[in-house]
Amino acid sequence: MRLVVQKYGGSSVKDAERVMNVARRIVKTYDEGNNVIVVVSAQGDTTDDLIEKAKEINTSPSKREMDMLLSTGEQISISLLAMAIEKIGRPVISLTGWQAGFRTDSAFSNARIRTINTERLKNEIDRRNIVIVAGFQGINKNEDITTLGRGGSDTSAVAIAAALGADICEIYTDVDGVYTADPRIVKDAQKLSDISYDEMLELASLGANVLHNRSVEMAKKYSVNLAVKSSLNNNEGTYVKGENKVEKMLVRGVTRDNDVARISLCGVEDTPGKAFTVFALISNENISVDIILQSIGNNGKKDISFTVKEADLEPVLELLKKNNDTICAEDIKYSKDISKVSIVGAGMVTNPGVATKMFEALYNAHINISMISTSEIKVSVLVDLKDAERAVNAIHDEFMLKN
Amino acid sequence: MRLVVQKYGGSSVKDAERVMNVARRIVKTYDEGNNVIVVVSAQGDTTDDLIEKAKEINTSPSKREMDMLLSTGEQISISLLAMAIEKIGRPVISLTGWQAGFRTDSAFSNARIRTINTERLKNEIDRRNIVIVAGFQGINKNEDITTLGRGGSDTSAVAIAAALGADICEIYTDVDGVYTADPRIVKDAQKLSDISYDEMLELASLGANVLHNRSVEMAKKYSVNLAVKSSLNNNEGTYVKGENKVEKMLVRGVTRDNDVARISLCGVEDTPGKAFTVFALISNENISVDIILQSIGNNGKKDISFTVKEADLEPVLELLKKNNDTICAEDIKYSKDISKVSIVGAGMVTNPGVATKMFEALYNAHINISMISTSEIKVSVLVDLKDAERAVNAIHDEFMLKN
Repeated sequence: MRLVVQKYGGSSVKDAERVMNVARRIVKTYDEGNNVIVVVSAQGDTTDDLIEKAKEINTSPSKREMDMLLSTGEQISISLLAMAIEKIGRPVISLTGWQAGFRTDSAFSNARIRTINTERLKNEIDRRNIVIVAGFQGINKNEDITTLGRGGSDTSAVAIAAALGADICEIYTDVDGVYTADPRIVKDAQKLSDISYDEMLELASLGANVLHNRSVEMAKKYSVNLAVKSSLNNNEGTYVKGENKVEKMLVRGVTRDNDVARISLCGVEDTPGKAFTVFALISNENISVDIILQSIGNNGKKDISFTVKEADLEPVLELLKKNNDTICAEDIKYSKDISKVSIVGAGMVTNPGVATKMFEALYNAHINISMISTSEIKVSVLVDLKDAERAVNAIHDEFMLKN
Repeated sequence: MRLVVQKYGGSSVKDAERVMNVARRIVKTYDEGNNVIVVVSAQGDTTDDLIEKAKEINTSPSKREMDMLLSTGEQISISLLAMAIEKIGRPVISLTGWQAGFRTDSAFSNARIRTINTERLKNEIDRRNIVIVAGFQGINKNEDITTLGRGGSDTSAVAIAAALGADICEIYTDVDGVYTADPRIVKDAQKLSDISYDEMLELASLGANVLHNRSVEMAKKYSVNLAVKSSLNNNEGTYVKGENKVEKMLVRGVTRDNDVARISLCGVEDTPGKAFTVFALISNENISVDIILQSIGNNGKKDISFTVKEADLEPVLELLKKNNDTICAEDIKYSKDISKVSIVGAGMVTNPGVATKMFEALYNAHINISMISTSEIKVSVLVDLKDAERAVNAIHDEFMLKN
């Protein structure tokens, strides 16, 4: 008997009607003769409402108590979804994270799954129960409730699929697959029928907002077959697999990420170790730096530019100013009005000229590039925020339509 | 160091302001050098809201899933209350029912506590943490979440006090103690400074609405010192203790219970076993019968009257009609417009004439009595619903004011 793991996000179960809709989908899969384990997120705005309740009392509560509070959101979803399936008349049981065997480390609000004790899950499946599991949560070694952080429910689903060797892990969202670009920005965006883990990883971290990278990383590590589908229609979704056999398109997708801020340290002394000093300072604060650019030295001076998430801009600026005695920059510049536009595709590494083609598309559209970053399967450029949508369309036209 | 167990009901924590108020009370007790364990119910209307959510999806969900859903209410309360104490700056930790070691039987929605594994509670107390425990909940032997049914949080608090040998178990409600009658009905009602377990038991089951009897039964069994106090003021409450030493008043309280329906089987054959047949039928449906009255046989016929809770009236009537082939009643009468008025006092058993005095008070007030039931420490009468408040006042005047 096939084992299907399905994951439904918060918008898919936001009200009674959507819950019943999801229940019918689950029952359909079950009635086709599959064993079904379903991971579900908190309903619609539940998490935000709970955060609001907490803030009324304490603006900086401990992460442990916050996890205790937020984990109730999924517990509400699983019981309601189980009740909906009971109404249709199929055997069903809901399980919280700890009941489903999720054991995590103790990083409250951003915990990592250590192991899944699958005994209970297996028992329920053996009884032909549909199993509804609370995503996003587990317990640490002290039996304290933890949450997995952003995209946690995706990770929960992939972890179960990996632990039980599921035949497929279907991630249901409000889009029906992975597209070559955001369909809200590019009207000719095409849905990909399949994509490799590595390509999906780059797309996820570049702001495609479909799957969280932790879940894709885990899927890759344990070779879990993933499918991204819509909970609102029956369209074929996108399959995320070990390798991309059909290599028709060099470039698999164009993405845009507006959550970027650029910082430039101008006129820094051109001596070895200067860059190290700067980035050690920043990483000590647990802040991630993305694209880094260093100008070639001139008159013993150079410029160091890099990007961070917008929320990290203020703390990094403060940090740099506080430490400018050792950094000795002549000027510190920054901007939030920028966007990172990227192309992703596993074929790029063996195909020179892809980056050139991208730059050409931008040149023809009169869009200025301020920074460039490349990896084996992606090319990212920084452009002005106002040019971002145009840039995505120009690149998409160049690669997708002309190919 | 003294160990104080406190329990706060849903209205005491219904919003952020009340939660902060309760937090300050807890911290005060802690700062006086006590170890403090707090049991808390779901906030205000949370439970009703959750039931409403469930009903939108399934009007008759399984009790297991209902318990999964409802137990989130207390989990929200405990985390918010812990955050409030964190804000004041004291060490605190919240624990769900299962984390606090509550193991119950499997009677979902009305489970009984089997044991409390006190290891975690003891560890947290040893670290001088204030411990906030979710009332009303536990897990069964399969690790499924159960709830304890009505008044469950009181029972949780008493169970912890019993298991850890607490010095006192304080139950905070929106009244500041146990009164000789409901102050909303009898303006001269007096607060009792202390009361015995048995008296409290009779008062609780007679509708005094202060403590649930399961909690009082457990307090009696394990000799837990109980105190009933208000969470809104600092008045001395009422102590519920092993025995009532100061026996000033014969009658300790007058209560009224409107949730009563009377059923009469008229013209039943006066043969042995007839009553047994009737009550076996009813108890098989798990319905409790309260006062029973059987008329003396006349012409080989007799009447059997009894009372049930109003919600049980319809099912019992159906049951009786369905089985009237074997019962053979000439007529089945019933009424909801009645009330049970009772006096309670441990001194009554050795003081003849108490019941007479009660009847006299009602006679003087021109109130008709339809049924009478007596036990060692109480006398109950059924009166018309419209006369109930007057009856309580008349009896209260007779016993409390004239003594």
